[in-house]
Amino acid sequence: MKNDIDVLVHEVGPRDGLQSIDTIFSTQAKLDWIRSEAAAGVRQIQVGSFVRPDLLPQMADSEEVVKEAIKIPGLSVSALVPNLKGAQNAIAAGAHQLGVVMSVSEAHNKSNINRTVEQSLEGFGEIVEYRNEVDPERKTVISGGLATSFGCTISGPVPVRDVMKRAEQLLELGADRLSVADTVGFANPKQVRDLFDELYRTVGNDVAIGAHFHDTRGLGLANAFAAVEAGVRELDSCLGGLGGCPYAPGASGNVVTEDMVFMLEAMGMKTGIDLDALLQTRELMESHLKGEPTQGAFVNAGPPLGFEPATAA
Amino acid sequence: MKNDIDVLVHEVGPRDGLQSIDTIFSTQAKLDWIRSEAAAGVRQIQVGSFVRPDLLPQMADSEEVVKEAIKIPGLSVSALVPNLKGAQNAIAAGAHQLGVVMSVSEAHNKSNINRTVEQSLEGFGEIVEYRNEVDPERKTVISGGLATSFGCTISGPVPVRDVMKRAEQLLELGADRLSVADTVGFANPKQVRDLFDELYRTVGNDVAIGAHFHDTRGLGLANAFAAVEAGVRELDSCLGGLGGCPYAPGASGNVVTEDMVFMLEAMGMKTGIDLDALLQTRELMESHLKGEPTQGAFVNAGPPLGFEPATAA
Repeated sequence: MKNDIDVLVHEVGPRDGLQSIDTIFSTQAKLDWIRSEAAAGVRQIQVGSFVRPDLLPQMADSEEVVKEAIKIPGLSVSALVPNLKGAQNAIAAGAHQLGVVMSVSEAHNKSNINRTVEQSLEGFGEIVEYRNEVDPERKTVISGGLATSFGCTISGPVPVRDVMKRAEQLLELGADRLSVADTVGFANPKQVRDLFDELYRTVGNDVAIGAHFHDTRGLGLANAFAAVEAGVRELDSCLGGLGGCPYAPGASGNVVTEDMVFMLEAMGMKTGIDLDALLQTRELMESHLKGEPTQGAFVNAGPPLGFEPATAA
Repeated sequence: MKNDIDVLVHEVGPRDGLQSIDTIFSTQAKLDWIRSEAAAGVRQIQVGSFVRPDLLPQMADSEEVVKEAIKIPGLSVSALVPNLKGAQNAIAAGAHQLGVVMSVSEAHNKSNINRTVEQSLEGFGEIVEYRNEVDPERKTVISGGLATSFGCTISGPVPVRDVMKRAEQLLELGADRLSVADTVGFANPKQVRDLFDELYRTVGNDVAIGAHFHDTRGLGLANAFAAVEAGVRELDSCLGGLGGCPYAPGASGNVVTEDMVFMLEAMGMKTGIDLDALLQTRELMESHLKGEPTQGAFVNAGPPLGFEPATAA
């Protein structure tokens, strides 16, 4: 993270948002979005996912998107990779950070990617080994993602000790950082604070840890605040909450980027992001949608009278 | 507060929600709502406002509503009163708690009720004197409301020292409790925690203090969490967020009761409220609306798998 910001906002809309909607953005539309949001001050964007194109046609151009996005000065380009092949392609394309995700919940991991958690850990180890081989200086950051850390739609509550165990294993296997995700929107702010407190006690305060929240039950920003309180300084979010709709049962998107940036800036935490420019990026992104709803409160309310963002100070 | 709950949820929908919409609920519809929500376990409901009926026709039947609501066993019936006349009528009707609100912001107070803050304080003192006269045992609780405590749409930022000053003055004048309101939805969670920390330092931990948040910029529940963290144990909210619409610029409702109850119960804090029954009350309330939107996430998402509310434990 750059020293001039307090919290790194990791925009995941071009991956998590776009893979959740029907409309397929052209490569140009994705790059327009990414360039605009980087110009607004967002320092890290997850631009795609290196999965089989027949499984996720929205992400079929991820290689091309990464290759162009890494030309944007100052932007950290991240990509999701499900396996070694995806990691090889993402590294070849020049991604700065690879997100490799497994579920802490055995049932969810099996259902989601048809692997046991142990198999996922093996796969994670292979990816790290490959990175170390082709990139001995380890410039490409490998993020170990812990999905369903706050609960699982198949098996329910997930024990904190399981999250700790998998976090330690990922670090032992060579993860450069961790990403802790409330994949299915189960978390509450007390649980968030307690889990991150325990995680820092377990892995130490030097490990970079990010948090990923969904707004399924209205607690996305409360959870983000609780994470920040616990010391987390990297937060995922999605512009316009793309991919979620409060009026469709079960559907739910990531925390809304612009609302989260407002919260952080209002609390005196620098994100490096210009909110006006971010809303312009939102409009640009929305112009490519075909009826998909977007979310958010700040876009309607605007800043409070006399608001002084931390970043401008 | 009863000993068997950790947080008192103060439902303000029949007052704050209904006064913000066009539809006028019949007295029967109001009472059905109030009875149903009390049966769901809500311990305190603001059922009306003793204002001039020509100014606020939605509240014209407040006297009758109070008279019936106080027959509900275990329910604390609160009402808003703008002045001595309103207080006299509310006490005569049998209200358990009177909410007397003034703005900390001089400009907002002037604009809202055409009084200086000093004049409002005088009026507050008169209400307390009247209550002490007719109710020497002081069974009728007088709540001193501090509106715009987190910012004002006319004058912008509101200094914390102004909130402290007015809080102390209200207590000196005989307020039995305080209610601190983010009337216009400006607050952020850090500000909330800092202000309540300072307030408890200023007035002591024995004073009952409630908090009132709006979800104008998506931070309502994050602010409620921050208030609870600071020690607040009485929170206002509105079933279905009635009176707010995220798609209309500037319009914004109170924090959604059922979402807040879910948050509190998930965090292990007993509210005494049954969430299923609360959603049934929401349906009942919605059946009387004529196109006005309601808000909320929990109503769509339902409880997480394996959810164990604190109250049922």
